[in-house]
Amino acid sequence: MAKIAIMGFGTVGSGVLEVIRRNAAAISRRAGEPVEVKYILDVRDFSGTPDADLFVNNIDVILNDPEIKVVVETIGGTRFAYPYVKACLESGRSVATSNKEMVATYGAELLALAKEHGAAFLFEASVGGGTPIITPMHQCLAANVISEIEGIVNGTTNFMLTKMARENMGFAEALKIAQQLGYAETKDPSDDVDGQDACRKICILSSLAYGHHIYPQNVPTHGIRDILAEDVKAAAQLDCAIKLIARSHRDEDGTISASVAPMLVPMSNQLAGVDDVFNAVLVKGDMLGDVVFYGKGAGKLPTASAVVADVIDALKNGAKIHDSLFWRAAAPEDGLFTDNSHAAYYVRSKGVAAPVLAALCGEGKVVFEQDDMVAYLADDTCDAAVEGIGRKLEALGGHLELVLRRLEG
Amino acid sequence: MAKIAIMGFGTVGSGVLEVIRRNAAAISRRAGEPVEVKYILDVRDFSGTPDADLFVNNIDVILNDPEIKVVVETIGGTRFAYPYVKACLESGRSVATSNKEMVATYGAELLALAKEHGAAFLFEASVGGGTPIITPMHQCLAANVISEIEGIVNGTTNFMLTKMARENMGFAEALKIAQQLGYAETKDPSDDVDGQDACRKICILSSLAYGHHIYPQNVPTHGIRDILAEDVKAAAQLDCAIKLIARSHRDEDGTISASVAPMLVPMSNQLAGVDDVFNAVLVKGDMLGDVVFYGKGAGKLPTASAVVADVIDALKNGAKIHDSLFWRAAAPEDGLFTDNSHAAYYVRSKGVAAPVLAALCGEGKVVFEQDDMVAYLADDTCDAAVEGIGRKLEALGGHLELVLRRLEG
Repeated sequence: MAKIAIMGFGTVGSGVLEVIRRNAAAISRRAGEPVEVKYILDVRDFSGTPDADLFVNNIDVILNDPEIKVVVETIGGTRFAYPYVKACLESGRSVATSNKEMVATYGAELLALAKEHGAAFLFEASVGGGTPIITPMHQCLAANVISEIEGIVNGTTNFMLTKMARENMGFAEALKIAQQLGYAETKDPSDDVDGQDACRKICILSSLAYGHHIYPQNVPTHGIRDILAEDVKAAAQLDCAIKLIARSHRDEDGTISASVAPMLVPMSNQLAGVDDVFNAVLVKGDMLGDVVFYGKGAGKLPTASAVVADVIDALKNGAKIHDSLFWRAAAPEDGLFTDNSHAAYYVRSKGVAAPVLAALCGEGKVVFEQDDMVAYLADDTCDAAVEGIGRKLEALGGHLELVLRRLEG
Repeated sequence: MAKIAIMGFGTVGSGVLEVIRRNAAAISRRAGEPVEVKYILDVRDFSGTPDADLFVNNIDVILNDPEIKVVVETIGGTRFAYPYVKACLESGRSVATSNKEMVATYGAELLALAKEHGAAFLFEASVGGGTPIITPMHQCLAANVISEIEGIVNGTTNFMLTKMARENMGFAEALKIAQQLGYAETKDPSDDVDGQDACRKICILSSLAYGHHIYPQNVPTHGIRDILAEDVKAAAQLDCAIKLIARSHRDEDGTISASVAPMLVPMSNQLAGVDDVFNAVLVKGDMLGDVVFYGKGAGKLPTASAVVADVIDALKNGAKIHDSLFWRAAAPEDGLFTDNSHAAYYVRSKGVAAPVLAALCGEGKVVFEQDDMVAYLADDTCDAAVEGIGRKLEALGGHLELVLRRLEG
């Protein structure tokens, strides 16, 4: 019998308890022994609930119990989660977490700590909800060198963009629906809609793929607030969908580029058809070519089932997992991992006439004009050039309101 | 330094050598030690080639060398591969193979043998080429009970069906192109075009998902020979693609259904957009919902890189992998795992008028008529009923030429 503890009894934490109980037989077979939740750490009052006996509000209870071999962290954030996870790893206990903020910020340190103390630090559920991405990446692609990752990793914004495209609605209305359905936070949805959530996930995947810590603050990150219903319609006319794309690339010389931004995705690209709350991550291996992992990006039980799979893995394999699931510590860079390669760009401006925007952008075509708003598809430009265009527009009394790079087909 | 042997130096076997050498640094890091090929077993003459020194033509050389810990089997078929693999496992050596015929036929026995002798028997490359499917299924979905698998698992026929749809060509012409490009066997392409290859793969995935051996002879298997350019066109009019679908399902009471057959796939289904030589497998977990694994289904280096990932896994984890990667032996069933559920069916007949076919099929609509050929979309029927329709047609001097079940959207 393996005894575990759950820290944080919110949506995912309570899902972990439910999955462990509902699929007890299958889990026991795969773990080689039954798995039981002995403690749940949560500061809130759960007395009077069916599992009241399991609750504790001091982490020392867990740290002082030698029976506990694996701890699940589903508190979220870093304020409590980070010191608690550190303490668990330092005591030689393995940790399975769904906490992307903690992994994106302290991943290298926690992995090293796990290795040092003979424990496992696992976080499959931090990217893609329940969809297996991290394990296939480090294990099945073990014979590959990965040079590129490109994905839709935030279900909330993907749901909103799908709504906007299908029902011709604006950002505000789509956000309201996402909030009503519980896909977006009601208080402050900015982590999702401004791209920070996607940024943390691409940092985790990139750190794993390229072997050293990639920090969120080095990744240029844009959300979807500036996208109008008109842009979505214009994209469709260009045979594209607008998707929030998280991507990174490593050149042969080791130079990293990474970004999170809404982009034009041609319908011929696999990612264009990924709709609603689904996530998809494309990984390019040098031997394997493209592989895509696709599944629902969120939800209580999917995410919880990924955490439980990690618990099983930790029980069976411990620190040995970190021969392949590992990346080196690295200091944050000074600047941003900007991608300087050329592509087609959709730019939308206000306050200048179409010929002016066309002259600044070079070869391309006007996509639409409406009042003093002009959308233009520039055939071949780059991030730095588009920045220059923005400055020139300001000087002419205009303003660049949206920039969408076009992905390859 | 881990020493391994390769049995069978064809396309995949030579790819394994190439992957091990090209990505030596990454492989060494993940395996925890360098990996070197010490022997290559092949009866053909490779003297005069750069690696002539590695070749042996007697398996005893490998079995008698205690340095060899893992053996790669890329001979294919079962005549030599099966006894050689048995001998390796019985000697406590782990085996990594790409041989789907052997796994579909002897999987349960070889898994038990591996477990008994403390070795690993791994076959990620037997399904999906290099695309990770088997490892994510048994490991990442460890906390799920799997009830359904549905996929496109044969790249050759998927390439042909894509050609037929895009370029309005018939089966014979598409086959010729597939043969010219090396996607289909020139001598005898029947394993691919008649569905046996897909059948073996769905047997492997189903055995793993449902926990006991599923035999190819119990799976009703149809290929794509009867599909005309007219059918592909008619499918498009119905907003569907025709795909060779391998699927299986387990009811709550444990009843298995399984099949390989060309089907109508609505464009709204993820599998409809999987084109060319790509494979995609959708797995339904009870906690997780749908997950899709997508990637190129074949190719020397992709397949070889999956074999090498298994070699690394075998070196690191040995027989412990079989806590989760395992299924029980079971005798073949007497009949077929027929799916008796209802769906819409596209049926094409010869020799009777449209009203006759319509009367036999019940509610639905005529899709096209051409000479004495009629295609009809029956709204709601099942395999058994369609068989009855075929018999009645024969009695009326007609003939049922093609039956395509429609998948859900």
